[in-house]
Amino acid sequence: MKNSAILLVQCPDRRGLDAAIADFIYWHGGDILHFEQHQAGSERFYLARIEWDLTGFEVDLKDFPKWFTPIAEEFSIRWRITTSSHRPRVAIFVSKYDHCLVDLLYRQRNGELACEIPLIISNHVDAKRHADFHGIPYHVIPVTKENKPQAEQQELDLLRENKIELVVLARYMQVLSSDFIRHFPQQIINIHHSFLPAFVGAKPHHQAFERGVKLIGATAHYVTEVLDDGPIIEQGVARISHRDALDDLVEKGREMERVTLCRAVRWHIENRIMLYGNKTVIFE
Amino acid sequence: MKNSAILLVQCPDRRGLDAAIADFIYWHGGDILHFEQHQAGSERFYLARIEWDLTGFEVDLKDFPKWFTPIAEEFSIRWRITTSSHRPRVAIFVSKYDHCLVDLLYRQRNGELACEIPLIISNHVDAKRHADFHGIPYHVIPVTKENKPQAEQQELDLLRENKIELVVLARYMQVLSSDFIRHFPQQIINIHHSFLPAFVGAKPHHQAFERGVKLIGATAHYVTEVLDDGPIIEQGVARISHRDALDDLVEKGREMERVTLCRAVRWHIENRIMLYGNKTVIFE
Amino acid sequence: MKNSAILLVQCPDRRGLDAAIADFIYWHGGDILHFEQHQAGSERFYLARIEWDLTGFEVDLKDFPKWFTPIAEEFSIRWRITTSSHRPRVAIFVSKYDHCLVDLLYRQRNGELACEIPLIISNHVDAKRHADFHGIPYHVIPVTKENKPQAEQQELDLLRENKIELVVLARYMQVLSSDFIRHFPQQIINIHHSFLPAFVGAKPHHQAFERGVKLIGATAHYVTEVLDDGPIIEQGVARISHRDALDDLVEKGREMERVTLCRAVRWHIENRIMLYGNKTVIFE
Amino acid sequence: MKNSAILLVQCPDRRGLDAAIADFIYWHGGDILHFEQHQAGSERFYLARIEWDLTGFEVDLKDFPKWFTPIAEEFSIRWRITTSSHRPRVAIFVSKYDHCLVDLLYRQRNGELACEIPLIISNHVDAKRHADFHGIPYHVIPVTKENKPQAEQQELDLLRENKIELVVLARYMQVLSSDFIRHFPQQIINIHHSFLPAFVGAKPHHQAFERGVKLIGATAHYVTEVLDDGPIIEQGVARISHRDALDDLVEKGREMERVTLCRAVRWHIENRIMLYGNKTVIFE
Repeated sequence: MKNSAILLVQCPDRRGLDAAIADFIYWHGGDILHFEQHQAGSERFYLARIEWDLTGFEVDLKDFPKWFTPIAEEFSIRWRITTSSHRPRVAIFVSKYDHCLVDLLYRQRNGELACEIPLIISNHVDAKRHADFHGIPYHVIPVTKENKPQAEQQELDLLRENKIELVVLARYMQVLSSDFIRHFPQQIINIHHSFLPAFVGAKPHHQAFERGVKLIGATAHYVTEVLDDGPIIEQGVARISHRDALDDLVEKGREMERVTLCRAVRWHIENRIMLYGNKTVIFE
Repeated sequence: MKNSAILLVQCPDRRGLDAAIADFIYWHGGDILHFEQHQAGSERFYLARIEWDLTGFEVDLKDFPKWFTPIAEEFSIRWRITTSSHRPRVAIFVSKYDHCLVDLLYRQRNGELACEIPLIISNHVDAKRHADFHGIPYHVIPVTKENKPQAEQQELDLLRENKIELVVLARYMQVLSSDFIRHFPQQIINIHHSFLPAFVGAKPHHQAFERGVKLIGATAHYVTEVLDDGPIIEQGVARISHRDALDDLVEKGREMERVTLCRAVRWHIENRIMLYGNKTVIFE
Repeated sequence: MKNSAILLVQCPDRRGLDAAIADFIYWHGGDILHFEQHQAGSERFYLARIEWDLTGFEVDLKDFPKWFTPIAEEFSIRWRITTSSHRPRVAIFVSKYDHCLVDLLYRQRNGELACEIPLIISNHVDAKRHADFHGIPYHVIPVTKENKPQAEQQELDLLRENKIELVVLARYMQVLSSDFIRHFPQQIINIHHSFLPAFVGAKPHHQAFERGVKLIGATAHYVTEVLDDGPIIEQGVARISHRDALDDLVEKGREMERVTLCRAVRWHIENRIMLYGNKTVIFE
Repeated sequence: MKNSAILLVQCPDRRGLDAAIADFIYWHGGDILHFEQHQAGSERFYLARIEWDLTGFEVDLKDFPKWFTPIAEEFSIRWRITTSSHRPRVAIFVSKYDHCLVDLLYRQRNGELACEIPLIISNHVDAKRHADFHGIPYHVIPVTKENKPQAEQQELDLLRENKIELVVLARYMQVLSSDFIRHFPQQIINIHHSFLPAFVGAKPHHQAFERGVKLIGATAHYVTEVLDDGPIIEQGVARISHRDALDDLVEKGREMERVTLCRAVRWHIENRIMLYGNKTVIFE
């Protein structure tokens, strides 16, 4: 079992940045396992992910800020540190379509997703049996136009109580309020069942079918206050033909949705995603 | 060398249609090589492509209408007949980007595209050397806001003189007028360098880059009077990442554009495409 | 709910075949929904799948052989008829890896696979909880070198008692004896975790990793007496890189294996697969 | 126009390696643009590609060895340095199939391949017109069983005279002798028209057709003395079906072959490929 630290760093690029960071880790006894950097845009904004073995690293991670701050200030670095042993706490929201939920649960159990899933929230009871199978609390919170604020408050309370760090909307068919979203900046991942920005909004499969496209898509993205406009994390496509009726589109879509969403969730919990403007940088 | 007839048929479905068509061909001595039918939509509109060996077929194709009309009238069939030996006459329009042109010419020469290419029209001189290499007349017709009607008239004259049956817009950067388009219904194929309906209009790669998509696309479609809205024939995608600058998108796009366009052109000249509403049915 | 008949036909091609079959169905009041034919090889061996609506069809399917035999004899047709309402009885064999099993069960429950799954057989107890979740009997039959004949006899008894029509080896790690295989000709589908014919036999992921391939594959095929040599039904691939350790290959492989296997099983139970020599023809 | 240095480094991993390299570049005034490292295998063998801006770099690259040697010795580093402005000299070998050649030449001319192509060698005259179009000397050197040593000597002389750094076998149908190969270690790239290690040797498309595979492949690899066994650089696949005759396989294969080969050639000339055992590491 790997015991490593992961440092995410972003700042304007400057000569000596790689050296400063690598030196810092080396001088404190760290053995670098992965070092990936990217310089975004013509202005060369610097983003990096550095992972090192903690065996022999002399700095207690609680004291990391103290030691790293001088470098961070020198280079105007915004940073975040975590460890490979930290398993983020993830809440899954689902409505009636359960294919993404089932896949997420399966992958968490077989070790592909290194996270905890302390609760599932749904506006319907339908998917409960999958939660039961895995022994995960399943909260049914129906949402109507009238009770939406209270319902969201109830959800927020549950997320806070469970110390949730990531919310995954696994085909959750309710639009979250801006207020809700502001509680979880870059911490809500949604799967939209189209190739964004095509077919924004409701019933994308119907829209795709009507337009007569030859490929259908799915898009995993962070949720921001503008519907279906957040930073795209991952996209998938599947080929369709005139032989495919609307139901076939829906079915072929399911395959992609679950794969695309799981990949996005995995990158998030492995701290492989950084934001630059409205775009994601994925350190695979 | 195959000597076969290809019959394209469309009408409301009715019991006995397949039998009536297959019987007709059989009783006149035809040996069916391929028989594909599709019933589109919930109303089950019937579309079929039937190909048969002409060896032994007793009807001279000039007389085909006379013999087939009784069946066509009984079933309200709209139909079209052609032969595998007919090589449609194709005009290619190109601007400065020549990758699609080069690919079309190469494939025509090596036999993948069974058509004649009697002329190339461009608003720039840049691609002329490729036309020269293959010995194809290359007409430079500059287009400005002022001369557009005259320029299009000149183009139409050339197309008529050359008995053109299909116009391929191989990254031709001028928007054709409705008037021009009406002369070639379902006979103009365009390659749009995005995954339609995302990024309609100008500079789709720029739009895709700004949005931060993870897949870029290309769409070959018939040109109708509404920009980028005609029936989609084929679409392709390529994966991109944060490492790809705008130039890389353009380059990765080229690969798809040429493959996607060539496939669409090939299906068209092999009489494999039928229209149903604003959608295509491809009898591969 | 569609109530249709599906007729699979194979014979040497002869003028009038399509007409004879379409006529037969029409004259007995059948309305053809799909008609697909293929002429294989230079000798043009004829294979076809015809599906028609049974509403109004005047022949009771029990009497179908009597009525169809004259045509079959005239054209030397080998044929098989079934109905869309028939749900084949499928047994799943599994060892410890449960990803294919879980996927098959999920898809059967959500309607993608129109079959019955009356039993699961395994040489290990590990996957039992999934069978329990779906309420399907799970038989543990350990296999050793010594008890193999008895174990297989036990399996064959179960299959016979349950009137099994298709055996799916969903990562079942035992090699079946020739004797067992002969009981189920073209009725056993296996998923091999490589891109056959590369990496035949044991530990294909290890072999692929050692060779340094850039794509890994999975192959669903009918089981014949020669190991990993039966007719290929479907293949899938996934891209890997130098960053992927052996464990990553195994994980990326899982994704493909389940998709590839499910597609093959679906085509089989929908009567879309015909054999020609050692190859499959898929009427999608 | 970028003016950068590219350093490729390999050695057993040791604490402080990244820091030592980054420091070295920083202290001599280099501004790192890309830093990618990989630790291969369980023994964590270290491979890295570092690119930095030469503007402000105080070491003349001619003196680089002198300055870098102390670090290289300390860490037992094997290394190689080059610059982004260096355009390697590439010879293309071709037989009759010219699709890969045509594509390589087109991409070189449009700037995708930053190399020089001072000559083309062929055992046939067929492809000469493409060389002429681009103004590249084309040498016809027929090869028979009898004259092979002399023919290869003639080729080697041409390569030496032209200071060739990379030989690309663009569907060159002659097997090179071990002696020839030893002159260009990791400097000969071949495109094999199958998904290696399936269908090694002659006529892979025929082999694939006979086996009834559902996907065909192409493999770009370095040539070693064992036929089709060298390190794999890139692989591509295309889907085929029962409808594809052998000729269709050949045609679908062409598409992949040229894309796969061009990608491999590009990575090579951009110094993105390192070898570890018989495997490649690609720093994309």
